[in-house]
Amino acid sequence: MSYQIISRHEMHSFMRRAMVSIGTNGSHAESLADVLVMGDYRGHFSHGLNRLELYLEDITTKSCKAEGEPTILKESGATAWVDGNNLLGPVVGKFCMNLAIKKAKESGIGWVVAKGSNHFGIAGYYSLLALEQNLLGMAFTNASPLMATTRGKEPFFGTNPLSLAAPANNGDSFVLDMATSVVALGKVELADRKGEPIPNNWAIDKNGQQITNPKDLNALLPLGGVEKSSGYKGYGLAAMVEVFTSILSGATVAPNVRKWGDNHKTADLGQCFIAINPEMFAPGFTNRMSELIDSCRNQEPAAGQPNVLVAGDPEREHMKKCDSQGGIAYHINQIEFAFRA
Amino acid sequence: MSYQIISRHEMHSFMRRAMVSIGTNGSHAESLADVLVMGDYRGHFSHGLNRLELYLEDITTKSCKAEGEPTILKESGATAWVDGNNLLGPVVGKFCMNLAIKKAKESGIGWVVAKGSNHFGIAGYYSLLALEQNLLGMAFTNASPLMATTRGKEPFFGTNPLSLAAPANNGDSFVLDMATSVVALGKVELADRKGEPIPNNWAIDKNGQQITNPKDLNALLPLGGVEKSSGYKGYGLAAMVEVFTSILSGATVAPNVRKWGDNHKTADLGQCFIAINPEMFAPGFTNRMSELIDSCRNQEPAAGQPNVLVAGDPEREHMKKCDSQGGIAYHINQIEFAFRA
Repeated sequence: MSYQIISRHEMHSFMRRAMVSIGTNGSHAESLADVLVMGDYRGHFSHGLNRLELYLEDITTKSCKAEGEPTILKESGATAWVDGNNLLGPVVGKFCMNLAIKKAKESGIGWVVAKGSNHFGIAGYYSLLALEQNLLGMAFTNASPLMATTRGKEPFFGTNPLSLAAPANNGDSFVLDMATSVVALGKVELADRKGEPIPNNWAIDKNGQQITNPKDLNALLPLGGVEKSSGYKGYGLAAMVEVFTSILSGATVAPNVRKWGDNHKTADLGQCFIAINPEMFAPGFTNRMSELIDSCRNQEPAAGQPNVLVAGDPEREHMKKCDSQGGIAYHINQIEFAFRA
Repeated sequence: MSYQIISRHEMHSFMRRAMVSIGTNGSHAESLADVLVMGDYRGHFSHGLNRLELYLEDITTKSCKAEGEPTILKESGATAWVDGNNLLGPVVGKFCMNLAIKKAKESGIGWVVAKGSNHFGIAGYYSLLALEQNLLGMAFTNASPLMATTRGKEPFFGTNPLSLAAPANNGDSFVLDMATSVVALGKVELADRKGEPIPNNWAIDKNGQQITNPKDLNALLPLGGVEKSSGYKGYGLAAMVEVFTSILSGATVAPNVRKWGDNHKTADLGQCFIAINPEMFAPGFTNRMSELIDSCRNQEPAAGQPNVLVAGDPEREHMKKCDSQGGIAYHINQIEFAFRA
């Protein structure tokens, strides 16, 4: 038996206790557990329990603060600039998205940027907070350098994810949550562990040459891959995320963000949270949204392909599976590692 | 001699006169010429003189209106919903972006969506209007179906472009202006005319299979290509653009937009224009922006690669070339075709 089913409740409680046991404020530990359990529940295992160790280390090494609240530095009807005060990313993210939601309800749009933040888990978590309020939500973060620019060879940008959640009828929705690199680092690491080659448009070596051996990895390529397959568009999108996060907020700018896994200095990440009230525009938003995603899904698939999905469908399937089996199926190694740590 | 240099002023005047001669309102013809000349000047020849015929046909067949003004249907401090009243795309686009700019100056953000619009030329034109006011600008449009969804085989979305312009110091800037398909249709058409194969991750045939012969084209692939090279991310971005344009505005939604080149029915495109005032956030935006783009450019390039560029640099080079040669270099066939039409 290589998998163990653990209920969301049990995992949440474990994560919260682990964080509190090293001195994290109870409500902060609660926020972190909310985001990490949601990551696993949605099937993004790289961003759930798998990351708990990183947050524990950030608190124990004091590279991230265990107590306090974010501060609003500047504010208008539709905007806010926030200092995350080096608190846990989920604490900063929830604070900012709740502020964006309040502003969107009053002014139509809420656009909130934070400096002084930390890893915030899946970007989709924050977009979904807006979705629960029948708003559109977006979230962006910069991150430790892992991705080269087009024509570059060294890691420059982080995987700089962006997310958009938009509500449809009857609880249906569109939930985009994607890194602007071709793939996440985890996919290259997985191939390495399995001893398998990677497609030659995922990553480059120290000279900037395309690789197929995961051991030669120096930097990931942006979405699109190399220049001739339009990787400059993914590079442009990664830069767009950097503009919305560190450049608007005054956080540390790529490529100066601390190296991945380095907790000798503070991360000072930049993040951006947007909430949009569809009622400010044409009536019937959710009807059109349902029509769009259903007409995507109802297409006849290409020869030999499974059904067409929309963003959020794979996660919906995963959550349904978790619900039917009574919890999240963790690999036994991951459980042993986490509970030992 | 296969090229002819024509000054921007002369080309602008020609386009304006051509549009006015078929009954287009003078100021509308002026707006269209502004956008098309800018397309050519920035080196996007597919979106300049090359498209004049399409606009002429839209007016002569009355599928687009030659007179009138857009109407604001709903408005708040940061948002507006506009009916483009089936006027020329550049008339609607300028109206909306100017409104977004006014709102951004007052409320920090201006988010304006339009229904009832038409082809608006390069998206970057509108972002640049905001840039001139020291704001960040964004523009999006939906379009006639040309791109398949992941696992699909028929054209579903348009090439759904997005643009972001952000100001840096001393007139420098970041100007992203990209289709969310791997490539524009023009690149496939060009390969066809030259009798050359296309890379197998650009497009698919009627069965949804990847093609290398441009004659087999049924639909373009989204940025990233097929599913295993992360094309589902490009598909997600195309859907995001659809959400911001037709779904927010109530315009015709993909895949129901009229076929490319069909002017028997109105286009009723949806568009979205955003202006963001960086002064609402951390002071020193343009300094950080300059630092970011300069550190991109100053990287040592990958072995065998030319200098690293940032979004907007190829256009800057092209405009410099035009300025030094006294105008835009048009292929003689294009000139003959346009002046005959």
